[in-house]
Amino acid sequence: MDRPTEHNEGQTKSKPTDNKISRRDLLRLAGVGGAGLLLGATGVGSLFSGQMRSAAKPASQIPEDKSADIVSFYGKHQAGITTPAQDFIIFAAFDVTAAALGDVRKLFQDWTKAAAAMAKGELLGDSNDNLNLPPSDTGEAEGLSPSRTTITFGVGPSFFDGRYGLAGKRPAPLTDLPAFGGDELREEWSGGDIGVQVNANDMQIAFHALRNLARIARGKAVLRWTQEGFQRTSSSDPSGATPRNLMGFRDGTGNPDVTDEAEMNKVVWASAADGMAWMNGGSYMAVRRIRMRVEVWDRSTLGDQEATFGRHRASGAPLGAVHERDKLDFDQKDEKGKPVIPMNAHVRLAHGDGTVKILRRSYSYSSGIDNKTGQLDAGLLFICYNRDSRKQFIPMQQKLGQSDLLNEYIVHTGSAVFACFPGVSEGGYIGETLF
Amino acid sequence: MDRPTEHNEGQTKSKPTDNKISRRDLLRLAGVGGAGLLLGATGVGSLFSGQMRSAAKPASQIPEDKSADIVSFYGKHQAGITTPAQDFIIFAAFDVTAAALGDVRKLFQDWTKAAAAMAKGELLGDSNDNLNLPPSDTGEAEGLSPSRTTITFGVGPSFFDGRYGLAGKRPAPLTDLPAFGGDELREEWSGGDIGVQVNANDMQIAFHALRNLARIARGKAVLRWTQEGFQRTSSSDPSGATPRNLMGFRDGTGNPDVTDEAEMNKVVWASAADGMAWMNGGSYMAVRRIRMRVEVWDRSTLGDQEATFGRHRASGAPLGAVHERDKLDFDQKDEKGKPVIPMNAHVRLAHGDGTVKILRRSYSYSSGIDNKTGQLDAGLLFICYNRDSRKQFIPMQQKLGQSDLLNEYIVHTGSAVFACFPGVSEGGYIGETLF
Repeated sequence: MDRPTEHNEGQTKSKPTDNKISRRDLLRLAGVGGAGLLLGATGVGSLFSGQMRSAAKPASQIPEDKSADIVSFYGKHQAGITTPAQDFIIFAAFDVTAAALGDVRKLFQDWTKAAAAMAKGELLGDSNDNLNLPPSDTGEAEGLSPSRTTITFGVGPSFFDGRYGLAGKRPAPLTDLPAFGGDELREEWSGGDIGVQVNANDMQIAFHALRNLARIARGKAVLRWTQEGFQRTSSSDPSGATPRNLMGFRDGTGNPDVTDEAEMNKVVWASAADGMAWMNGGSYMAVRRIRMRVEVWDRSTLGDQEATFGRHRASGAPLGAVHERDKLDFDQKDEKGKPVIPMNAHVRLAHGDGTVKILRRSYSYSSGIDNKTGQLDAGLLFICYNRDSRKQFIPMQQKLGQSDLLNEYIVHTGSAVFACFPGVSEGGYIGETLF
Repeated sequence: MDRPTEHNEGQTKSKPTDNKISRRDLLRLAGVGGAGLLLGATGVGSLFSGQMRSAAKPASQIPEDKSADIVSFYGKHQAGITTPAQDFIIFAAFDVTAAALGDVRKLFQDWTKAAAAMAKGELLGDSNDNLNLPPSDTGEAEGLSPSRTTITFGVGPSFFDGRYGLAGKRPAPLTDLPAFGGDELREEWSGGDIGVQVNANDMQIAFHALRNLARIARGKAVLRWTQEGFQRTSSSDPSGATPRNLMGFRDGTGNPDVTDEAEMNKVVWASAADGMAWMNGGSYMAVRRIRMRVEVWDRSTLGDQEATFGRHRASGAPLGAVHERDKLDFDQKDEKGKPVIPMNAHVRLAHGDGTVKILRRSYSYSSGIDNKTGQLDAGLLFICYNRDSRKQFIPMQQKLGQSDLLNEYIVHTGSAVFACFPGVSEGGYIGETLF
């Protein structure tokens, strides 16, 4: 897979590197007192942005390519949507307990500062060496590289129930999902007033981010559910091929090109023209916790598995083709006149007529075993972004839910949707167009 | 942390590289038909060792440093004990359902072949392209590097209950653990006839290994419980420092030196002289699922946190010292005459008089939230190896359970012990000294 360019949609044309700390800047800062200067750059004395995580180290120990390991939090769009997928995720849904909109606004202001600091690999806050206070950063990511951390925020339908006088601001595309075939949804993995997607190339860093966001939210929001996920570690795949899901098949081949701005505007980014100005440049996210019936799948033949996906397992090529990215030929027939790609194959139903697309950003998960059956609780934390779920994700999933051959092997156990805010510039805060 | 040498205890003195496929061998094999030759090397046609995972690739795509990414399964001792800790773990406990000892023996023979193949990054079995059969490998690790995969096997006290005529073979050090202070053990994370520790620098590869072991066990053993775990990703820590746990403190500083053979013989490896010849070269493992009361910890002051561990958070140094590996000075007093390292600090109790050691090999875990409280279910999957738990782990944990300052912030929710077999040579199988 080609590595698309860094998250840089928000950079002005004239200053293409505005959003990143350059390597030169890093070394310069480190050389003249690191922590203090960087504090200055991100708001001196602010509670949730602060000390450089590696501040205590001499300059020579700061990895030279650290800037390559940073995805800027700021930009026209939120990072973590068209950003090339990192290796790990913790997804979290929160319910808001704050009494007033002002508290919600404060929460997002604090979260914004914290998220921007963590994207740069900084320790949170400025009291990490005062023995008489709880440390402002929980510390488990201290000394680690930024690891391409991104944190992406959205609000769910329940957020607009009227508590905060925002019922009239609920965008029409932020609709509750209808019941789909194959749903066996559980409350413990569904819904939420706020959705937060944390990604990083390091699981401990992802955990650190979520934990500190939850800590910052104390008194304003509580965790409703979370789910950890992973892909193959990028360093273990020298070919850079499309990662495989836990059924052994490559997942994401058909994704639209995130470097194609026109395509992203069509598929991913909401527009003021869609109705709600505050969502201009945002995106709608659907999250589905999809358990795979691993033990059943593993007893099916390779032929059945390939017919189910409509692709060859080893190469990822469409059935009847050779290479992963060969064109999908749905008209091809075998010698008996039957379609080479079955009518209910996953790839055929998901592709449809080719005009409806979504941007998938899914992860595998493994969450121990089901105590009732002794079977693995593992599968896919499916995440997608689209401009309007009513026209993209929902009709696609309705078709899949009805007749996808995969349904024999999967069950949807969790579900949530969120309106993910547009990005913000430094000094602004996530949600500023709504609050 | 210095990277100790590779797992090579079983290598004869005269042929120090016997256990590894050298880079030259790999390239040679790949150049002349890869899969077939390597198949030959590991047992042609055997069910659970087989195709090179990267067999379909041209030689040029095989990573040049692949051999550096392989920890040999074979050796005097099992890999995964003194092997430098990889980034990820899936620990699994199985209960045996086989009717006869012969079936158990067959299970371990099949597991041995599979584990040896996975250590080399090979696809399992020889039917991964027959459309009419279930693939012999589930496929999700295809094309990935071996990622230092190790798989370590042991048997628990319940295995010796007489079902298989082995009651007389139960080693005295394999004793059930007594109740410790701080225990709130749950059946769902405790016990097991067999314990399997899977480690790799890639979570998807670790999952693949466990899943295929469970598949091979069908009809002979069933999963009882599993727990995923992680550390910081090694590539995100350029300093190579001791990893931090989820309390933000470095964990493992006091571990004995795994490159010191005499020390390992004293601390880790069981000996025939201890009573049971079949455990000669094996080790006793204790596993504890320790939940951290993260939210409580995060409200305590840095001073309290450092007093609890007896170390400085940022540096990892003992209280009153500067560097992580500075000598522990338990006699040092502050200006008021109080011990600088408190009497009940974790490091003081765990250190004791310095004569009793264990080899810790623990991982952080994050398993969603506790649905009853909304708090994070996160903590430490503590694993240790020792020569005799009755003289090492048990008395150490009894002291900690009674008075460790940490007890305010942790609760032990799972527990198991296993006698981990000695290693085997190629052609042998894990457990051969017992079965």
